[in-house]
Parts: sequence; C-alpha cells; structure tokens
Amino acid sequence: MTAKVVVVFACLFCGVTGGIRSVYADEGMWTFDNFPAKKVAQKYRFEPSQAWLDHVRTASLRIAGGCSASFISPRGLVMTNYHCVVDCVKAISTAGRNLVNTGFTADSAADEWKCPDFELDQLTAIRDVTEEVQKSLAGKTGEAANNALQAETAKLQQSCGSDPSIRCDLVSLYHGGSYDLYRYKRYSDVRLVFSPEFDAAFFGGDPDNFNFPRFDFDLGLLRAYENNQPAASSDYFRWSREGSKEGQLVFVSGNPGGTSRELTVSQLEFERDKELPALLPEIGEYRGMLEEFIATGPEQAREANENVFFIGNFFKVESGRQQALMDPQFFKLKVDEEKRLRDAVGSRSMASEAKAWDDLAQVQVERTKLYLRQDAMDGNFFFHSGLLGRAIDLVRIPTERAKPNGERLPEYTDQSLVEKKEELLASIPLFKDLGELSLRFAFTNLQRKLGADDPFVRKMLRNESPEQLAHRLVSGTHIDDSKERERLFNGGLAAIETSDDPMIRFAVLIDPDLRLVRKEYEAKIDAPTRSAAERIAKLRFAVYGTSIDPDATFTARLNYGAVKGFNDARGQWVPPYTTFAGLFERANGAPPFALPPRWLSAKSSLSLSTPMNFSTTNDIIGGNSGSPVIDQDARIVGLIFDGNIYSLGGDYGYDGTSNRAVAVDSRALLEGLRAIYHLERVVEEIESGR
Amino acid sequence: MTAKVVVVFACLFCGVTGGIRSVYADEGMWTFDNFPAKKVAQKYRFEPSQAWLDHVRTASLRIAGGCSASFISPRGLVMTNYHCVVDCVKAISTAGRNLVNTGFTADSAADEWKCPDFELDQLTAIRDVTEEVQKSLAGKTGEAANNALQAETAKLQQSCGSDPSIRCDLVSLYHGGSYDLYRYKRYSDVRLVFSPEFDAAFFGGDPDNFNFPRFDFDLGLLRAYENNQPAASSDYFRWSREGSKEGQLVFVSGNPGGTSRELTVSQLEFERDKELPALLPEIGEYRGMLEEFIATGPEQAREANENVFFIGNFFKVESGRQQALMDPQFFKLKVDEEKRLRDAVGSRSMASEAKAWDDLAQVQVERTKLYLRQDAMDGNFFFHSGLLGRAIDLVRIPTERAKPNGERLPEYTDQSLVEKKEELLASIPLFKDLGELSLRFAFTNLQRKLGADDPFVRKMLRNESPEQLAHRLVSGTHIDDSKERERLFNGGLAAIETSDDPMIRFAVLIDPDLRLVRKEYEAKIDAPTRSAAERIAKLRFAVYGTSIDPDATFTARLNYGAVKGFNDARGQWVPPYTTFAGLFERANGAPPFALPPRWLSAKSSLSLSTPMNFSTTNDIIGGNSGSPVIDQDARIVGLIFDGNIYSLGGDYGYDGTSNRAVAVDSRALLEGLRAIYHLERVVEEIESGR
Repeated sequence: MTAKVVVVFACLFCGVTGGIRSVYADEGMWTFDNFPAKKVAQKYRFEPSQAWLDHVRTASLRIAGGCSASFISPRGLVMTNYHCVVDCVKAISTAGRNLVNTGFTADSAADEWKCPDFELDQLTAIRDVTEEVQKSLAGKTGEAANNALQAETAKLQQSCGSDPSIRCDLVSLYHGGSYDLYRYKRYSDVRLVFSPEFDAAFFGGDPDNFNFPRFDFDLGLLRAYENNQPAASSDYFRWSREGSKEGQLVFVSGNPGGTSRELTVSQLEFERDKELPALLPEIGEYRGMLEEFIATGPEQAREANENVFFIGNFFKVESGRQQALMDPQFFKLKVDEEKRLRDAVGSRSMASEAKAWDDLAQVQVERTKLYLRQDAMDGNFFFHSGLLGRAIDLVRIPTERAKPNGERLPEYTDQSLVEKKEELLASIPLFKDLGELSLRFAFTNLQRKLGADDPFVRKMLRNESPEQLAHRLVSGTHIDDSKERERLFNGGLAAIETSDDPMIRFAVLIDPDLRLVRKEYEAKIDAPTRSAAERIAKLRFAVYGTSIDPDATFTARLNYGAVKGFNDARGQWVPPYTTFAGLFERANGAPPFALPPRWLSAKSSLSLSTPMNFSTTNDIIGGNSGSPVIDQDARIVGLIFDGNIYSLGGDYGYDGTSNRAVAVDSRALLEGLRAIYHLERVVEEIESGR
Repeated sequence: MTAKVVVVFACLFCGVTGGIRSVYADEGMWTFDNFPAKKVAQKYRFEPSQAWLDHVRTASLRIAGGCSASFISPRGLVMTNYHCVVDCVKAISTAGRNLVNTGFTADSAADEWKCPDFELDQLTAIRDVTEEVQKSLAGKTGEAANNALQAETAKLQQSCGSDPSIRCDLVSLYHGGSYDLYRYKRYSDVRLVFSPEFDAAFFGGDPDNFNFPRFDFDLGLLRAYENNQPAASSDYFRWSREGSKEGQLVFVSGNPGGTSRELTVSQLEFERDKELPALLPEIGEYRGMLEEFIATGPEQAREANENVFFIGNFFKVESGRQQALMDPQFFKLKVDEEKRLRDAVGSRSMASEAKAWDDLAQVQVERTKLYLRQDAMDGNFFFHSGLLGRAIDLVRIPTERAKPNGERLPEYTDQSLVEKKEELLASIPLFKDLGELSLRFAFTNLQRKLGADDPFVRKMLRNESPEQLAHRLVSGTHIDDSKERERLFNGGLAAIETSDDPMIRFAVLIDPDLRLVRKEYEAKIDAPTRSAAERIAKLRFAVYGTSIDPDATFTARLNYGAVKGFNDARGQWVPPYTTFAGLFERANGAPPFALPPRWLSAKSSLSLSTPMNFSTTNDIIGGNSGSPVIDQDARIVGLIFDGNIYSLGGDYGYDGTSNRAVAVDSRALLEGLRAIYHLERVVEEIESGR
C-alpha cells in the first residue's frame, strides 16, 4: 500500500530537492491555493469553483503519523485506511484480545474506543510568509542560516498562540521557492469506530501489494471528538450511491508525503549510486529478522505481523525508486529536463543563480563523506523511535526547554512539545522483545558502518557486544511503562540526572555525539542544499511560473484524473474494476489469500458483482493512503489505499500511460459494512449524511 | 574471509566471461603450465624452476567444497583454514559436545576423526584437449552445442577410468580459448586433527572480516588416509622457522574460485544494474532471518552460528563487487580496456570474430528477460541444497542413470556420481528447523519474484502459503536421516515412485519445470555467451598471446607477491605484521572480540612479540582460503585466510596499490599449537618434516 511507514521511514532519507520535470497528462499534486481549475475544465469539462475547493479542503484531514483521511458525516465520522489505524487497533489489543486478527466494530457510540496518541489535522488557512522567511535567511550560510530558519520557524508557529487545538506549520514549497504558514484545527481525541480483520484489509499481502487487479477492504473508521462529544464537522463528504464509471473524472484530496521530482541530476546520482544500494540490503536484513521473529510464536506474530507487512511495503517502494533511477531511458529524461532549464536560464542573464547546479554537485561530494555517519547516528530510525527514541526525547527535553523557544531543536519548540508530550505519555504497548531485536540490529549496523575502531562505536559499546548492549538496556529499562515516562517527563533535569535506568543513562551518554553529527550535517549539507534549491526555484519561476506543482511535502494537495485501466508488463490490458466475485475466486484459504470466517459465511448475502477496487490515473504517493476519491459533486466514490507497480517510479516523475492509483470502491465499502459487519448505525449515518 | 561459501554461493551467479584488462604489478592467478617465471626473476631475482613448480603443484591440494590446502608432512598431514573444516567440526559435534565452540585436538592418531563427505584433490597432470573440444563444438549453436560439450566432457572424464581415487575435470580457460583435462589424485578418507575455538579462528568476527590489521588463528589441520593408514605424501611443504620479512618475495599456491576480469562491458552492466541490486537485499534478508534464528537459543546458535558468519562474509564480498562496478573511474578502466582490444582487433581483419561484443550485448537483453526465473528456480541455492536439494538429487538419479553417460546432466555422469553418492549418503546433521527456515525463505522469494499468479508458483503452492508448504515438507520428511537417503538411493526408480515422503513427492512435482528452465537458459544464454567468449579469447590470443592469466576457475593457480602494508581509506599506512600482543590488546571480552579461556590462561606462556597475521600483495580471491604462503625455498611462511577490503574489487581487476592478501604467520601457527593447544606430536611432525 501507499503506506504510513513510507513517510515514517522515508523522511530518514529524504533530501531537499530542486529541478524541473516534463509535464504529463493528469500529473500534479496541487496545493489548494494554486489548483489548475482551468486546465481541468479544458480536459474534463468541469471547473472546480473556489467554494468547491474550500469545501474539499476542509472536509479533508491529515493523520499526523503519515496518512490522509476525511470527514464523511457531520458528526465527526472519519474515513481512512485500515493500515492507517492499525497502530490504534494494536494499541487497544491485548494478548487475549487480538483485534488486529478479529477486527473491531463499535456497535454503539459508547463502544467507540479512544486511540492513544492519534492526531487529525484539518487545514483551515494558508498564509504566504515567503518574504519574511527569505529576509531572515538573506546573506546567511551554513549554521547561521540554519539558526535563522529555526528561529523564524518557531516565531511563525508561535504566532498561532498556545491553544493545543490549533497547529501551525511552516511549509517550504518548491524547496524554498516559497514559504507558507499552514494553520490547522487539531483533533487529538480520536476514537476507533471500525476496523476489519487484517486478512480482509491486507488480502493478498506482500505478493499483491502494489499490484492490480486487487481485492482489499482497506477501510478504517474513526470519530473525532471534542469535549467528550462527537465533533461537529460541518464540512464533510457526502457518499455517492452510484459510485464511479470507467473514464469518469475523479479527484483525490490528501497529503502526499514526499516526491523527488525536482532533484538535480547530481542529487539523483547520489540516491542511485550511494543511498539506495546501501539502504535496500539493510531493509532486507531487518525484514528477515522480523519474519523470523513472528515465526517463533503467536504472541510474537501479534506484536510484529503488521511490522513485517510495512517493512515489505517499504522495501517495494524503495526498490521501485531504485529501478526508476537505474532505467537509463528514464534517467536520460531527467538529464534532458535539467539541460532544458539550464539552457533556458542561460539566456536570461541570471548566471550567478545558475551556479546552483554546480554547487549542488559539490555538495554531493561532501555528502558522500558525511552521510554514512549521519545515517548511522542522527538518521538512525531505531535510535529515534521505540524505547531508545523515547529515552533520547526524555533526556533532551529538560535541556531544550531551558533554551529560548527559537533556539531549540525544532521538535522541542513549545508547539512541537504539545504533540511530543502526547506521544511520550501515551499508554501504548512497547514490546521489549521486539525492542531488543531492533536495537540489536541498530547497534550491529552502526558497528558495521563505522567500524569496530570508531571512537563513537567504542564509546557506545565499551566492553559489550551489540547484542549484549541491546539486551542490557532493554531488560533493565522501565520506560516501556508510560507511568515511568510521565515521571521522568515531569521530573525535569533532576529526574534525568538521578535516574539509573540503563536506557536513560545510555541516551545521556550518546546524546552529545548525536547532536554534533546532526549539526555538522545540517550545516555542511542541508544549508547549502537549501540555498542552491532556492536559487533553482527562482530560476524555475522565471521560466515556468507556478504552472508546475511543487514537490510533495506531506501537506494538503488535490489532484485530478480518470478511472482507467492500464497495460501490464506483458502488454495485456488490465481493466479498472475488480468485484467481490473476483475476491472469492482468488481466496484459496492460504495466507495471504485466506479470507476471515465472517467474509466466508457472508458470501451468499453479498452482491458479488459489486465493484470492489479500482484504478485511476490520479497522481498520488505514500501519505495519500486514506485519501477520499471524489466525483465532481464532491461525493465519495472511493478510498485510496495503494498504487500499481508503475506508480513507484512516481517519486521521480509521473508517467500517465501506466502509473495508477488504487482505491476501494464506495459501493464495496457500504456493502461490506452492511452485509459482512452489520454496522447498520454507521451505514445509516453515512447514507443519510446526518 | 576468503571463504568457501563464496564459491558455493557465487557459482549461482557466475557467468561465462570474456574481455581484457590492463596489467598491474604482481597481478595474476597463473596456471602451473604457464607460470611467468622470467617475469618473477626480473622483479624479484628468483626464477622458479620446472622442478620447483612441479613440487609446489603436488604439495598443494584442493578441498572439493571450495577451499585450498597443502601437505605439510610426509604422513599426509594437511594444513588449511578453520573455516574450511568447520563443516566437519559441526558434523562431528552434538548438542552436548559443541566442538565449534570448544575446538578439537586429536592427542593421538587414534583420535583423528573422520570427516563425513570430505574430499581432497591433488593435481597430478594437465593435458591440453583444446583441439578435440573445439572440434566437437564446431558449427553448433544453442542446445546442440550444449549437448555436444556435455558429451565430450563425459567422454574425456571417462577416459581416466573408474578408479574412485582418480578424478578428471575438463577445465575451460580463457572462457573457451583453451581446454585442459586436469587429472587429480582424490583423497576421500580425510580426518580431523585439529581445530581451534570459533572465537579464536574468527576473532573480530564480521566487523574485522576483510579488514586489516587482523588477529585470527584461522587454522584447521586434517590428515589424508589411504587404506586406513596415513597417506604417504612425498611432496609436502617444509616449514620455515624464520617466517617472512617485510618486502620478501612470497608465493601463494591455491584454487581461486572465480574472477570476472574478462567480462565485457555489457556483461558488467548486467551485473551492476540487474544482478547485484537484486541479490544484495536478498542476502540481507536471509542474513536477518539467520541472525534472529541464532538469537532464539543455544542449540539454534550451534546449528547456525557459522552460517551467519558465512552469509555476512558473502554479503561483504558481493557489496565489494558492487562498489567496484559502481565506481565510475574503475568502470571507465574496463570500458577503455575493451576499446583498446577492439581497436587492436579492428586492424587485424578478424571482423567476423569482432562481432562477438555485439552478440554479447544482445545476449544481455535476452538474459534480462530470463534471469529472474532462472535464478528463482534452477539457480535457487535453497532448491539445490539442504533437504530439498537432496530430494531432487534422489529423484533425478534413477532417470539420469538410465541414460547414456554423455547425455546425462553433468552432475550425474558416472564420475560425478562417485562424489554425489558420498555427499548424499554422508551422515551429517541436517537440522530441520534451519531447513524449514531456508525453504520458507526460498518459497516466499519465488512467489515474490514470479508473482502469485505465475503457473509454476500456483503449481508449487497449490492451496498452501510458502510457510505452510515449507512446514509440511520439512516436518513430514525422513530424508534428514542418511539411512533413508541410502534406501532411496539404492532403491532406484521404484523406491522413488512408491515413496510417500512429502519432500520426495514435491521434488517429483517440480523437477520437470526446473529442468525446462535450466535447458532454456543454457540454450539461450550460456551457449551464445560461450560462443562469443571463445571468439573474444581468440582475438585476445592474437593480440596479447598468453601473457595474461586466465580468469580463475577453482583450479590450481600460483601467484607471487611481496609482504607489504598499504594505505587505508584515511591515507594512513598500515604495516604488514600484527602480533599476539596486539590480539590481547584488542580482546575486550565481548563477542566477537572475546578470546577463548584457553587463550587467556596461556597468555603468560606465549611469546607476545610473535608475528600473528600479515598482509601481502599476492593476487587471491575466494577459494584461495587455506592456501599455503611459501618462500622461494618452498617453505611455509603463512596460511592465507582473507584479503583486505580493497581485495574485494579484485574480482574485476587487481590494484596492487591497495589490494592485499591476509595470512596467519607460520611462527604464530607453531607457537599457538605448542603453547596454547599443547599439540606437541603435531608440532614435532611439522618441524621435523618426518
């Protein structure tokens, strides 16, 4: 699927970008304040009005962890994917009550179960702040530029006040070509209404993932609450009874996590030749560990089943990126695009800006020297998540809080701390055996990458092996208990200094080194990259204006397309719709092609010709999971949950001949909720729009 | 290390090669009948005589599984690496008697323990058969050419008679430029005399592997027996008391497994862009599974500890190859080399042969279409090893035996069956849990690569998941018992047809498909590759003569070099010798830097200044493990066990400025055997040469 984890992981590796691509049909992840309504009208004879756009924007939602969603009733009912709520399902499961396997239905409002650490964001306003930000950066380089941006960001975010139900994010578009302040209404009381069984939501598992035809019921229903009551959501999407038709115009509103279409050739070469060859085997290894872990018993399977699925998904995504870059024809397109822009610029006497490409090439040389260490320490996903990630947060917070807001690391500003606190204190299960596995992997990898004689490796391991260190830290820590995290959070510096928790002591030991590596990388790589990308963005505006959409940034975007099939690798036409009948044909009883009992017994009461999944030409990417597919009346006709295999190269460029988004059909959603899950109260709420 | 597994795994992926490289100092893996003695004399003022070469050849040995060795006494005493005998150590271990951990010392001749399925080969004669082989191939292409070569190979091997102590191999050098028949004396009663503890042999583990400075006691001692008596080995290497000195000329005699220095640019591009990007994440995943498997308990660790080490080694080797190919400067060297030869050829009016490069480029297009399936089915290491590999052999043998010798698959000719039978009936442990893990991995990967809808995948899995199929086959099979394998082997077709063993039935089910895929690949890829490579070899002879050594083929080779340090990545000079003192400094007690108790307690009785490991400029590669390092008096000064990190690119080309072989010093070997292991009877045998 177009998954959450894509964002979670991918931001470890995403760089600042800059460049130009060619324009294809239906391409574009457009911001709501620059939507090409006239272009849509030319091709599809429907021109979205400003009111239509505003309605769609406010009926759409972002899930802070990395997904999209939407309101589908005036009483705060929210539609998204199962794979976007699985963390909640897991958090409210226990060893004896495995809701991941069995699914969850709230038969009454009272049964709607609070999701720990879950946040929905509704975009309410966009303000252009380009001038202020660029002024604050003018003439500064390296660390000074980073400090200035950090201070300006904190100031702008702070300008929204301290109400925890308001969130403001500084959004950099076109890689610094423009800056906007996005203001969100923030819902942090979110409850689970419905989730299907893992086997229905992920039917076909890894083999079918990013493939089509497809047969998934990847639906999760939530409800936003305010003051312990269902939130009043006046802007919401109505449901389409008829669904969609082949060739029909459809829109997808969501939060694509990140694209790299504007990377320069030197940046693409870095990804192709350095980053991805190192990353993919590492994903493979961790995937193998998890696969073996879940094979050891049912409890281990409960703990990590969907981690295995997410890591497999991540692997496919990154492989798809690699394959795109290693395709010489595709790469030549990128080289030609860059040449066209540079040629166009050459004739505009902006030669001083045009040095940006050479600057970026030079940055890649420095990056090659620094990235392995940065990736192993500051960029290490396992250092900054799970038990150790929480320990590092707990250790850093008192120190950061003592600084003025504008001088803190961005994740600890007053506004960021609202979210950080919820995340830290949430009562979610942190499985120790899985945590030990992850740290074992992280420490071993760090030792491999930097070498056994590296001073940081020696400091970290002292006289222990990676395995011994991971075991000692995890077995001795108490921060898997949210009460202990709360005690440390509230206790400030004194609590940290007097704690003899081995995970805390370890975080204290390595924190200065992690900070140093981060600071060096930000100064030597991020700052000059941003500076060059800004100059390229200016050149691009000079040549193309804003007729090209900005690279995705996990912020609200709207795109358009049509319901359409495609030719597969053998040249065979794949039609755009599948049906329930096809699902039952494919279900052979063996995982991942085994249907849950509830589906098997409901077969006779289902209308088997109901369209189940469909493919469209919409230009989406990871982060769009859970996005509504709507028709020109802004009615729900589907629910995005994946792309086909050709969509994976979409990170670098959209190819309308084969790139397809994949969605659950609105007709299947209602039929399933009614005939399989008997959720009449919800069906009635959706259908009535009341 | 330069390991066994390199060969075992690597031949799944090795292609036929062809091309030309530039010549560097000390480069070359020379056959004994074309050794550049005069060139050595020019540089090092010592010219090996024919008698010297003959002596070195017959004192050297090959271990059939993928290593090198040598006689070091007239009573059949054999020196090789620990990592070359670890399969034997494991085979004679039990859950209660873990010799991998504790080491093994045969205090008397009666304690020398037979290694199941172990073969030593001593090269006794080389006969040029180029004319006969090329005549048999003349005018044939595709399947016809393959059949002709198969028949000619069987005929030539058969010409050595049926004595199981004689083995003849047809060796193709310069990729078909010439063919030799190598005649070996074959020792199949091989007994274990000594092995150290895993922690001493693999000190530094994966982090130190392919690095230098290094501190390993990677020694294994065997003894060849004939008629239940120690074999009389009149040609053997005497020991050097003084060892070596920096700058001294040294020779390495051994069996480098394979190099790819003569690949054309189109073949290199295939490896760089298709094969290695797919292979490395796969190795990573299997590695992760094994790492997690050994973490589950001590018995699992006993079963798979060294598998983890070998897979880590394999990963480093393949990564090193990838990095070499992805280095644009290095790749340009290969492009330039090819251009030079093609230019030279152009002026010799051999234009029809010169089409070979274009033919090979065309083969890569077809290969891209076929290799995934070939790799997943016929080339699948896990299908052709372990429990399923043995089942496939047992199923194929009766069918193959019924055919004339020259029409059988090469691994089932009369001569090959001698070895195959020993392998099949050997009483070695085949752990079911580990076997299930491997098949789970293999089936899952096959499903991923070919897709869930592939007809072979559907036939194989029917209504099972990869996990279910692996579990059913492994839990139900009895062929882990050597008695059952013997019954099936002796029972012929009837025993197979009436067996209800699920592994046998599965092998019967898939055998026709595996054969078809193999045949197609051999006809469409291997045959035209061989044809083109032969033509390129002819052109090369025309331009360069035989002044360039042929690519390695796991046959006897001799090379020369000097004891020498090198500059590391930071430009720091690494001196060529380490000492016992350095070992004790590095030993911090945490695996893989933990020394066995025996070493710790012997510290005071060791001469700490004894040189332990050293680096030389000799041009070696996987398969050379266990090779003796000798001085110009043909005395042992060391034992090859590894290369430095820069040696990994050596697959594609030798760079004398940094590529180093790594060996255990002869002085450390004797000091260790005496002061730590108290093996006086063996020390006395080595020192006296009697």
